[in-house]
Amino acid sequence: MSPSPVRPPVCPPAGSTAGSASDVLERCRELVRPALVEAVGRLHPWTGEMAAYALGWADTAGNPEPGGSEGKGVRQALAVLGAEAVGADGSDAVPGAVAVELVHTFSLLHDDIMDADALRRRRPAVWKAYGTGPAVLAGDALFAQAVATLAEARGRQTAAAVRCLARTLNALVSGQAEDLRFEHRPWRGPDAVGPDRYRMMAEQKTGALLGCAIALGAVLGGAPDRTVTVLERAGRHLGLAFQAVDDILGIWGDPAVTGKPVHADLRQGKKTYPVLTALAGEGRAARELGALLDSGRRVDGDTAEHVAALVEEAGGRIATREEARRHLDIARHTLRETPLTGTAAHQLDALFAHLLDRTW
Amino acid sequence: MSPSPVRPPVCPPAGSTAGSASDVLERCRELVRPALVEAVGRLHPWTGEMAAYALGWADTAGNPEPGGSEGKGVRQALAVLGAEAVGADGSDAVPGAVAVELVHTFSLLHDDIMDADALRRRRPAVWKAYGTGPAVLAGDALFAQAVATLAEARGRQTAAAVRCLARTLNALVSGQAEDLRFEHRPWRGPDAVGPDRYRMMAEQKTGALLGCAIALGAVLGGAPDRTVTVLERAGRHLGLAFQAVDDILGIWGDPAVTGKPVHADLRQGKKTYPVLTALAGEGRAARELGALLDSGRRVDGDTAEHVAALVEEAGGRIATREEARRHLDIARHTLRETPLTGTAAHQLDALFAHLLDRTW
Repeated sequence: MSPSPVRPPVCPPAGSTAGSASDVLERCRELVRPALVEAVGRLHPWTGEMAAYALGWADTAGNPEPGGSEGKGVRQALAVLGAEAVGADGSDAVPGAVAVELVHTFSLLHDDIMDADALRRRRPAVWKAYGTGPAVLAGDALFAQAVATLAEARGRQTAAAVRCLARTLNALVSGQAEDLRFEHRPWRGPDAVGPDRYRMMAEQKTGALLGCAIALGAVLGGAPDRTVTVLERAGRHLGLAFQAVDDILGIWGDPAVTGKPVHADLRQGKKTYPVLTALAGEGRAARELGALLDSGRRVDGDTAEHVAALVEEAGGRIATREEARRHLDIARHTLRETPLTGTAAHQLDALFAHLLDRTW
Repeated sequence: MSPSPVRPPVCPPAGSTAGSASDVLERCRELVRPALVEAVGRLHPWTGEMAAYALGWADTAGNPEPGGSEGKGVRQALAVLGAEAVGADGSDAVPGAVAVELVHTFSLLHDDIMDADALRRRRPAVWKAYGTGPAVLAGDALFAQAVATLAEARGRQTAAAVRCLARTLNALVSGQAEDLRFEHRPWRGPDAVGPDRYRMMAEQKTGALLGCAIALGAVLGGAPDRTVTVLERAGRHLGLAFQAVDDILGIWGDPAVTGKPVHADLRQGKKTYPVLTALAGEGRAARELGALLDSGRRVDGDTAEHVAALVEEAGGRIATREEARRHLDIARHTLRETPLTGTAAHQLDALFAHLLDRTW
């Protein structure tokens, strides 16, 4: 057990100086970091140690981890930019930024238990490193601290901010429930998961928190309801685009970049957008893919390679790229529905575009 | 998956007509039930099904469970009486009552995973019945819905109520962390768990939520801060008394009443108050107990029986009864520190006394 909370490494993670969106991410991380460190420091030392590991700040011995395991901090940046975009100071968003970052870490941590995912950002998942029971507890601690951080924020907007976070927590859990239940559905036929049903799941599981991040910034920045609603909607579409890219990376992503095994989602039999849209096709590849998946045959090695090729041939990869592109376009257009402060609006737009510019 | 949320059984649980405290518990359950059913009904159907099982309303097939598996609803009753005691209507406390009941169910559910407790109220724990991953999710769903229910409550007091709940959530998780870490401490010597350390853990793990329940009722009933503070302190002492009784039942309780195996806490090697105070003694029984526990010998069957006898002989049972009695007295005295409405104050006092009047 570490006697005091572990500080994150002071050096910026690799690649953070690449472009202006990366600069924005780094600036926001620097702004939010003291409050995030403080929030983690308020945890019980043991859950604080696990939280520092989950955040990529420390290894399991509590020693500072060299940069690279820390997340980009997308959600905290959206919160900061949400406040700046409505003319407030980015620092007004900090309690919201801390809350969404803690909630994100909580959800990764618990989802890894439920999905039996052993790797996260090229390291053992928390449940692999510390055990399932402690990982459940560490997730609960992050969840509780997220709510407390926001509830203790000063200002008239606190109640609205907490309501926004609470709605999002419900959505996150529902989205995860829906995703897990997809496992019990057939690949094809009337009970199969259709693209709309999949999209609803993704909007809850991924869109809700990105929408909440930017909305919280706006709420804490004192924006009127209409502006908050527009920004939240933009964030939700960004989330749908983000999830589509994640689904592509889950099949075709480079393990060195994703930190996960190649074809990870195929091996796990996950019902993701590329596979579902490929199965909805009518060509030979779609039929062969359907027959192969229906057979219940174990998908790994050469079979995984073959399934990935069939999904691509049946149009699943292109359809998912189009899905990502479409939701990114909607997200960027939505930003223009409400007057925003120039610099922040520009940075938000650049960040939106950057988030999809991953290797896919 | 059940298409609609399962309703709790309409018949009162066995024994609920025994005395006036039981009548109070039943009255409060009836008052809170519609809102609790509605909150569970807002969950994803799958997590709702698990929540209904955890609350004792349904079996794993989703069929209504005959009375007996439902909890007494102590926390919801404290919330209702907290509002009535400050002159408000009990219905003002309902969002708080729902929140504490959901948080309590969440904590039992996740704690059973961490403690590997297979039985809860004479039935398989949720993780045994549905699997660990789903049980993690069901707990998260209850946690999120608790926060949302309170955050969405109308009235000026909402922000203060949410802060109170958030502090409690942090305390609950810290208390559970501390309890789990106790396993790694020696039974005797300078690093052993002393009674004060144990009491701090119990106050967080058990006292905080009972204190929060009554405080939330008072907050939602519009009470001034001073009154809220006094009532919360009374609830915390009640919690310490409650935990002491639980510790006694964990060793000497009748399995037919506790729904757990005989000597459950001893078999699990839990560092509870009776054992810790017994070990702090200086007689022969204390020394023999210490040597036996230090040996790491498996505690079950006749050995568990013998350990229980040594704990009793070394004074652990009497010390724990005294601990319970002392905190109950403080709790009841604390209630008199602030002017309260007559009937509700009387019912609170009766409920406090009743809660310790379990078979011990």
